[in-house]
Amino acid sequence: MTRKEAFQTIIGTAEAITPKLVEERHDFHKYAEGGWFEMRTTSLIARRLTNLGFDEVLLGDQVMKRDVRMSVPSDEVLDAEYARALAQGADPEFVPYTKGGMTGCIGILHCGDGPVVGMRFDIDALGIPESTDPDHMPCRLGYASVNNGFMHACGHDSHAVIGLGVAEVLMKIRDELHGTIKLIFQPHEEGVAGGAQAIVANGHLDDMMYMIGSHATKRKNEAPGTALVPGMHGSLATSKWGLVIHGHSVHAAGCPELGHDALLAAATIILELNAIARHSAGATRIGIGKVRDDSVVNAISDEVHLDFEIRGQTNELCDYMLGKAKRIIEHSCAMQECTYELVCKGAAESFVSSAPLLKRIRRVCTEDLGLLVSAEDSMKGGGSEDCSYFINKVQANGGESTFMRVLTDMTGVAHARNYNIDNEVLIPNAVKAFCGTVYDIVNDPDALIKKP
Amino acid sequence: MTRKEAFQTIIGTAEAITPKLVEERHDFHKYAEGGWFEMRTTSLIARRLTNLGFDEVLLGDQVMKRDVRMSVPSDEVLDAEYARALAQGADPEFVPYTKGGMTGCIGILHCGDGPVVGMRFDIDALGIPESTDPDHMPCRLGYASVNNGFMHACGHDSHAVIGLGVAEVLMKIRDELHGTIKLIFQPHEEGVAGGAQAIVANGHLDDMMYMIGSHATKRKNEAPGTALVPGMHGSLATSKWGLVIHGHSVHAAGCPELGHDALLAAATIILELNAIARHSAGATRIGIGKVRDDSVVNAISDEVHLDFEIRGQTNELCDYMLGKAKRIIEHSCAMQECTYELVCKGAAESFVSSAPLLKRIRRVCTEDLGLLVSAEDSMKGGGSEDCSYFINKVQANGGESTFMRVLTDMTGVAHARNYNIDNEVLIPNAVKAFCGTVYDIVNDPDALIKKP
Amino acid sequence: MTRKEAFQTIIGTAEAITPKLVEERHDFHKYAEGGWFEMRTTSLIARRLTNLGFDEVLLGDQVMKRDVRMSVPSDEVLDAEYARALAQGADPEFVPYTKGGMTGCIGILHCGDGPVVGMRFDIDALGIPESTDPDHMPCRLGYASVNNGFMHACGHDSHAVIGLGVAEVLMKIRDELHGTIKLIFQPHEEGVAGGAQAIVANGHLDDMMYMIGSHATKRKNEAPGTALVPGMHGSLATSKWGLVIHGHSVHAAGCPELGHDALLAAATIILELNAIARHSAGATRIGIGKVRDDSVVNAISDEVHLDFEIRGQTNELCDYMLGKAKRIIEHSCAMQECTYELVCKGAAESFVSSAPLLKRIRRVCTEDLGLLVSAEDSMKGGGSEDCSYFINKVQANGGESTFMRVLTDMTGVAHARNYNIDNEVLIPNAVKAFCGTVYDIVNDPDALIKKP
Amino acid sequence: MTRKEAFQTIIGTAEAITPKLVEERHDFHKYAEGGWFEMRTTSLIARRLTNLGFDEVLLGDQVMKRDVRMSVPSDEVLDAEYARALAQGADPEFVPYTKGGMTGCIGILHCGDGPVVGMRFDIDALGIPESTDPDHMPCRLGYASVNNGFMHACGHDSHAVIGLGVAEVLMKIRDELHGTIKLIFQPHEEGVAGGAQAIVANGHLDDMMYMIGSHATKRKNEAPGTALVPGMHGSLATSKWGLVIHGHSVHAAGCPELGHDALLAAATIILELNAIARHSAGATRIGIGKVRDDSVVNAISDEVHLDFEIRGQTNELCDYMLGKAKRIIEHSCAMQECTYELVCKGAAESFVSSAPLLKRIRRVCTEDLGLLVSAEDSMKGGGSEDCSYFINKVQANGGESTFMRVLTDMTGVAHARNYNIDNEVLIPNAVKAFCGTVYDIVNDPDALIKKP
Repeated sequence: MTRKEAFQTIIGTAEAITPKLVEERHDFHKYAEGGWFEMRTTSLIARRLTNLGFDEVLLGDQVMKRDVRMSVPSDEVLDAEYARALAQGADPEFVPYTKGGMTGCIGILHCGDGPVVGMRFDIDALGIPESTDPDHMPCRLGYASVNNGFMHACGHDSHAVIGLGVAEVLMKIRDELHGTIKLIFQPHEEGVAGGAQAIVANGHLDDMMYMIGSHATKRKNEAPGTALVPGMHGSLATSKWGLVIHGHSVHAAGCPELGHDALLAAATIILELNAIARHSAGATRIGIGKVRDDSVVNAISDEVHLDFEIRGQTNELCDYMLGKAKRIIEHSCAMQECTYELVCKGAAESFVSSAPLLKRIRRVCTEDLGLLVSAEDSMKGGGSEDCSYFINKVQANGGESTFMRVLTDMTGVAHARNYNIDNEVLIPNAVKAFCGTVYDIVNDPDALIKKP
Repeated sequence: MTRKEAFQTIIGTAEAITPKLVEERHDFHKYAEGGWFEMRTTSLIARRLTNLGFDEVLLGDQVMKRDVRMSVPSDEVLDAEYARALAQGADPEFVPYTKGGMTGCIGILHCGDGPVVGMRFDIDALGIPESTDPDHMPCRLGYASVNNGFMHACGHDSHAVIGLGVAEVLMKIRDELHGTIKLIFQPHEEGVAGGAQAIVANGHLDDMMYMIGSHATKRKNEAPGTALVPGMHGSLATSKWGLVIHGHSVHAAGCPELGHDALLAAATIILELNAIARHSAGATRIGIGKVRDDSVVNAISDEVHLDFEIRGQTNELCDYMLGKAKRIIEHSCAMQECTYELVCKGAAESFVSSAPLLKRIRRVCTEDLGLLVSAEDSMKGGGSEDCSYFINKVQANGGESTFMRVLTDMTGVAHARNYNIDNEVLIPNAVKAFCGTVYDIVNDPDALIKKP
Repeated sequence: MTRKEAFQTIIGTAEAITPKLVEERHDFHKYAEGGWFEMRTTSLIARRLTNLGFDEVLLGDQVMKRDVRMSVPSDEVLDAEYARALAQGADPEFVPYTKGGMTGCIGILHCGDGPVVGMRFDIDALGIPESTDPDHMPCRLGYASVNNGFMHACGHDSHAVIGLGVAEVLMKIRDELHGTIKLIFQPHEEGVAGGAQAIVANGHLDDMMYMIGSHATKRKNEAPGTALVPGMHGSLATSKWGLVIHGHSVHAAGCPELGHDALLAAATIILELNAIARHSAGATRIGIGKVRDDSVVNAISDEVHLDFEIRGQTNELCDYMLGKAKRIIEHSCAMQECTYELVCKGAAESFVSSAPLLKRIRRVCTEDLGLLVSAEDSMKGGGSEDCSYFINKVQANGGESTFMRVLTDMTGVAHARNYNIDNEVLIPNAVKAFCGTVYDIVNDPDALIKKP
Repeated sequence: MTRKEAFQTIIGTAEAITPKLVEERHDFHKYAEGGWFEMRTTSLIARRLTNLGFDEVLLGDQVMKRDVRMSVPSDEVLDAEYARALAQGADPEFVPYTKGGMTGCIGILHCGDGPVVGMRFDIDALGIPESTDPDHMPCRLGYASVNNGFMHACGHDSHAVIGLGVAEVLMKIRDELHGTIKLIFQPHEEGVAGGAQAIVANGHLDDMMYMIGSHATKRKNEAPGTALVPGMHGSLATSKWGLVIHGHSVHAAGCPELGHDALLAAATIILELNAIARHSAGATRIGIGKVRDDSVVNAISDEVHLDFEIRGQTNELCDYMLGKAKRIIEHSCAMQECTYELVCKGAAESFVSSAPLLKRIRRVCTEDLGLLVSAEDSMKGGGSEDCSYFINKVQANGGESTFMRVLTDMTGVAHARNYNIDNEVLIPNAVKAFCGTVYDIVNDPDALIKKP
C-alpha cells in the first residue's frame, strides 16, 4: 500500500464509520458515568478492541496503579455503581475488572520494530445534571443522560468514540504500521484525580516517544472550516486539596475559653491563602470552596471542611503556592490548638507541546488529509489537564508530545448543562488526524526510538 | 375554705393527679413536636382546659402576633406537620387553629377584682434525635419519640403537664381565687425564636403584675430533697442571626479579578466578630456556626451562609455587640463588593428575679407547702431564656416576676440524647409551688394591681 | 505614753511638719525623675532616714535583686541621668549606690519582739512633659518639672514625702513601737517594670505580716471631707510585652516571593490577639501600641516592633491571655517564616485587700484619728498596681495587707499634663492613717507574727 | 557641514569635554540635593545653558505646574534648603526661581522648521546617607556628599552632566539642526513624586514627537564594551500612597468598648491589601511600609500612619489594584468607626519603547558613532520610572520615544551607600548617543511633525 493509498484508506474508513460512531456516542452520552464509575463504558471499549483483534487489551490493575488514584469513593458507592453498570448493559466478560473503580482500558498493537506511539482518550462524564430543556439536542433525540447527576458536558463521550474509530481505522492499515501503538482510554480526567498519574505509574509510558492527546473545542477566531489546532500551551499546573480542621467544641457562651475554634482557624487560613505573596516569575492562583462548618451557633466549631486549589504558570510556581499554603495551614491550626488532615484530591502539570510534532501534524493534515489547520500552531489553554502527565513523561523520555484541539461548533459552553457539540464533523476529523499522524510517524525512518 | 384548707386541697390534689400527669407526659414525650410544630400538643392542652371549664381558652391568632414569630418554616413543611399531628391524634376541634405554625394556648380564669397573675409553661421539643439505647428510660418504657429528629430533651413535656396540673388544681380552689389568672402554654422556646415575644406583642401581659415561669433543673450542690430555687439571675441577653452573603462567581483561575468573593467577606467577618472589643461593663459573647459555602474550588464563592449569635450580660451589652456586628458585616461585604441579607432567628433578654416575689415563694413553700427551698434565693443561669420577655414586661409594668428552678434528679444533661428526669417528684412539687404562690398572691390585700 | 498621748503625738507631729513636707514635695516635683532614674530622690530620702536615726537604711543591691528589673535603659542613658542627678543636688554620699538605675531605699526600725510591718511609697515620675500653662499651679509657683519629658503626674512626689513624714512621726513615738517596721521607697511603679518584684525577690517581705500601700486619689462620690477609703479591689492583673518580629526584606515588586513579611505577621498578630476568646470566669483585656515598621513601601518588611499588654480580673485570667498571646505570636511568625523576640516589660498582679485590716484602719481612723472614712470599705480599681506583689506576698505569708486610697481634690486627671492635687490636706491625712494603724498593730497583743 | 563632519564634531567634542564634565559631576555629587531641593543644581544648570546661548532657559513656574507636585515638604524645610543651597554656591541670579521647591530647568533651541525633539535628564539625589568607607571612591577623592542624609546613589549626577554635555555639543552643530530641541532637566524622579507629571502638565510635551530618556545601568550579560541598550520595556505602572487612619483613643483596659481602634483597621487593611485577587491579565504587586502607631499599649490607637504602593504590568492593572485598595481602606476604616486621609505620594506609568526609534538609535550608534549596541533592542526594567509620562505622552501624540540604558561598570548596586560608577566611559557614550540620534532625526526628511 502506497502512502497515498494508506491515506485514502484512512480518510475513507473514517468517513464510512462516522454514522456508527455518532450512534455509539449517543449511547455513551445516555449512560454517562462519572470518574471511577466508567464501568459500563470501559467494558464496552474492551469488547470492541477485543473484537477488532488488538494484540493486548489491558484492564483493571494492568491499567492503573491502584493507590495512585485520588478522590476514590467508598466501597459502598462503588458497589452500587457496579450494579448500575451491569443493569445498564455493561459487557459481563470485561466489567468485573472495573470493580472498585479500576476503570480505563489500554489497547496495544505490536507491529515489529519502530517507535512506541501513544494516544490518549478520556472517557469520564461530569458530576452535573443534564438540562431537561426539550430544545436541548440530547433531550430532543432521546439520548439525554439517564444517570441522574452525571452528564457528558465536556465531550469525553466524543473522545471515547474517536478512540474506537482510531482503533478501527488502524486495523485497516495494520500492515503499514511499525513499532508499538497504544490506545489509552483514560478514566477520571475531570477533577484531575489521578487517572493519568495512575497509568503513568504503571510504566505504560516508559518507552513511549510520541504521544498525542486531544480535546473537542469550540471554534472561535479560527477561519471557518478550520479542523484543528495542533498544539496547546499555557495550561496552569494545579493541585486540589481537601482540608479537615479538628477543633474542640464547648458551649460558646458558657466557657468559650476552653474551645479550640476550628472556624477561627479556617477564617485565618482563607485570608492568609489569599494573601500569599504574588510571584515575580509568573501567574499564580488560589481557589477555595466547599466550606462547611455544621456546628451550631452556640458551640465552638469542632470540625470545618474546606477544599482549595492552587495553580501556577509552571510546576515550580505551583510548588511555591503549595509550600506557602501548607505552612499557613499548619500554623493557623496550631495557633488555635486545632489539628488537621490534608488530602490531595487532584493534580495536573503545566506543559508545552513539542514544536517538531506540531509541524508534523500540520504537514500531514494539510498535505495528506486535506484538513484546514489553524494559523497558530498552538492554542493558549485556560484550565488544567492531566494529559500533562503523559505529555511531560514523553518529553522527559526525549520524545515528542502534544495536545491537539479538534474544533467544532458548540451550543452552550463546556461544563454547562446545555452543552452540545457537532459530532458529525468533529469525529471524522479527529480520527483522520490521529491515524494520519501515527502513520506518518511509524513510517518515518528518523522516528525517535527510546534507547534501552 | 380557710387558708389551711386551701393548702391541703392544693397539696392533696397535686399528689392525687400526679400519676395521670406522668402518663400524659409520656404521651407528650412520645409525640415530641419541635418549635411551631406543637400542633397535637396545643390541641390536647386546649381540649383539657376547655373540659376543665376555663373561662377563656385562646388559640391561634388570639395567642400570638403572627409576624413576630421568627425562623418560621415553609408552608410545605408546616402542612406536612399538620397532617402528621392529625394522624397522631390531635384534637380535631382545636387543631385547625394551629395551622401554619400558630401553636400555643392561653387559658384564663376571671375571678373578680384582684391582681392579674400569669404563669408560663413552654411546650416545644428539641430538634435532636432521641437515644435508642435500650437502657434509656423512654426506650425501656416504650414512650421514646416516634417523631424522628425531635426529642423532649429539655423537659418541656414535663413543663406542659405541670401546666395541666396547675389548671386542674386551681379549679378545685376556684372559689378562693381573685383577680385574673392566665396560664400561658408557650410554643418555640428552644432557639428563642419569638414564641414569648409574639405573645407579649398581642398584649396579654399589658395588665399583668405577677408572673412566674419555671424550668426543671438538675439538683447539684443543693441539700438533698431540695424542691426548688425561687429565682434566677445571670441569664445572658442574646440574639441569633442568619447571614447570607451574595458575591459574584467567576472562574477562580481564569479571571479572579472579576469575582466578588463572598468567602473572603465571610472570613473577614468571622475574624472581626471575634475581635470585637471586650466591654468593661460585663460579659459579652460571640458564637458562629452553620457556615456553608457550596462553591467549587475553581470558582469564586458567590454565596456563603453563616449563623451567629451575640450575647451580653445585660440587654445593653447585647445591643453593643449587635451594633458592632452589623457594622462589621456591612463593611466586610462592601469591601468585597458583596451584598447580604441578615435575618433575626431568635432573641432573649437578660433579667433578674424580683426579690419580694422570691421571698413570697420561699415563705409559701416552706411554711404552707412543706417544701425544702434552697439556701440561695436565686440560681445563676447559663444560657438564655425567652421567659425574659414576660419577666421584664411585668417588671416594666411595676410588677414582680421570677423564673423558678424546680429541682430533680437527671440522667444525662439537658439537650443530650439520653436526657431523662425524675418526674414523680418534680411534677407535684412544681404544681404545688405554682398554685400555692398564686393563692397567696390573690389573697394578699396588698397585692399589686395595674393602675389603668 | 498612753494610747491617747501616742495618737496626740501622731496627729500633732503630722500637722506640724506638713508645711515642710509640702515644700519638699515641690522639690521632688521640680526634679521629676522617671523609673530607674530616681537617683536624686533616692539619695535625699536616704539622707533624711539616716539623719532621723533609722536603724538600717538600705540602698542599691541591698534593696533590689538587680536582674529582676525590666525595661532597664542602656548604660549610656543611665550614666547621663546619674550626671544629671549629681548636677541637680543629689546627696553625694548616697547617690553612688543608685548608679546603673539601682534606685529605691528601705528604712528599717528594729523595736524588739512583735510583728513585722511594712509600708510602701512609690517615688518615680511619669515619662510625659508637664503643662506649660501659666495657670497650672506648678508653673505659677515655679516648681514645674525642669527635667524635660518627665512629670510627677500621678502623685508619687506626694507619696515620697508622705513616707518621709511617716518616718519622722514614727521616730517621735519610737518608744511605743514593737516588732520591726520597714519603710519601702519603691522605684519604677509606672509601667510596673519590676520595682516591686525586685524588692520582693530580695526577701524583704519574707517575714512581713502587715503591709500597707496607698495612692492619692480624686474624691468622687464620697461624702465631702472623706479622708480615705481603706482598701481596694478589682485591680486587673497585667503584663506588658515588647515584641520584635524579624522577617527577610526583598524588593516588594521585584521578587516578593522571596520575602518573609514581618508586617503581614504583625497584622495577623494584631487581629488574632483581639480575637482571643472571651473568658467565662471574668474580665480580660488586650492592648496593643507602639507599632513601628520602618521599611520603605517597595521592600518587604524585615523588622516590626510592637508592644502589647494583657490583663485579667485574676492572675489566672491574665495567664490565660498570655498563653493564648504567645501561641498566636509563635504561629503568626512561623506562618510567614519570621523569627521574633518577646521581652517582658512590666507586670502586676490582681489583689484583694484583707478584710480584718480594713476594719482596723476604719476603727483607728474614726475612733483615734478623727478622720472621716468612706462608707464603702474598698474602692474598685481601674488600672494595675505592682503594690500587688507586696500585698499578695504578705497574704501568702498568712498576713494582712491593703492598698488605701487617700482622697484629695484634683485638677486634671491622673497622667494628664495639667494634673495637680491638694497636698495640704492629703499629706497629713495619709501620715496620720499610716502611723496610727502601725501603732495599733504593733500594740495589739494578737498581732500576727510569722512562725519561723 | 556634511553628515560625516557633523558626527566627527559630535564625537570629538564629547570626548574633549569629558574631563570637565567628570569634574562637574563630582561637584553635583558632593552637593547632593534630594527631590524638590535641587536648588543649587538647577541654578548651575540654568547658568550654563544661558552662557551657552540657549534660546530659552525656563525655570520655576515656567517648568512645572506647581500643584501637580507631590510629597512637597513644609515651607520651613524648603526655606532651610534654600539657605543651604545659597551657602553652597548656588547661582544668585537663577536660584530665586527655585524657592519653595520649584526646581528643574528646560533649555530650548529654536532651529526653524522641523520636528520637536526632547531629551530628559533627571537631577535629584536619594535620601540615603553616603558610605564613609575610605575605599569608597567619592571618599577617597574627596567629593563624597556633604549634605547629610542625601547621596547620588542612582547616578542622576551623571545624568545631569550628560545633559550639560549634550547642550554643549549641540551648540557646536547648531547650524545643522532643525525644528525645536528641548533639554529637560527634571527634578524629583526618585519616589516618582510628580517631577515628570508637573512638567507634562505645563504643556511642554504637547508638540513633541521624539523623546529620549536614559539611565546609567550596570553592564551584566552584554558583550564587553557594549555602550548601550536602545530601549526598555516591562517597567511596572505604580502609584505610592500615604494613609493616615484616625481612631478614637480610650483606656484599653478601662473602657475598650468606647474606642475606635485605628490599629485594628490598619491590621485589616494590611491583610486585605495582600489578599487582593490576582489579575489574569498580568503581574500586579502590593507593597506596604512605614507603619507607625505611637499610641501606648494601654490606649486604643487613635492614629496610625501607613504607606503603600501598588503596581501593575499595565496602567489598567495598576488602576485595578488602586480601586481594590481604596475600597478596602474605606471599609476597613468604617468598620472600626475610623476616618482616614489618603494622599498620593508618587506615580509612574508602564511603557514600551517605540520600535522605529530603537532601530534608528541602533543604526546611528553602530554606523555613525562606532558604539557597540547590545544584541537585544530592549532591556526588561524592574522598578518604575516617571520618564514614562514623557514617553507615553509623546506616543499619544503619535510620536516615538524610548528610554535608553547607557551601560557602565558599577561598584555596589543602585540605591546602595557604596554605589559608584565609571563615568569616564559612560558620559561621552551617552552624550554621543543623544546628540547623534537628535542630529539624525532633525535631518531626516521623513521625521514626524505634529499636525496642528
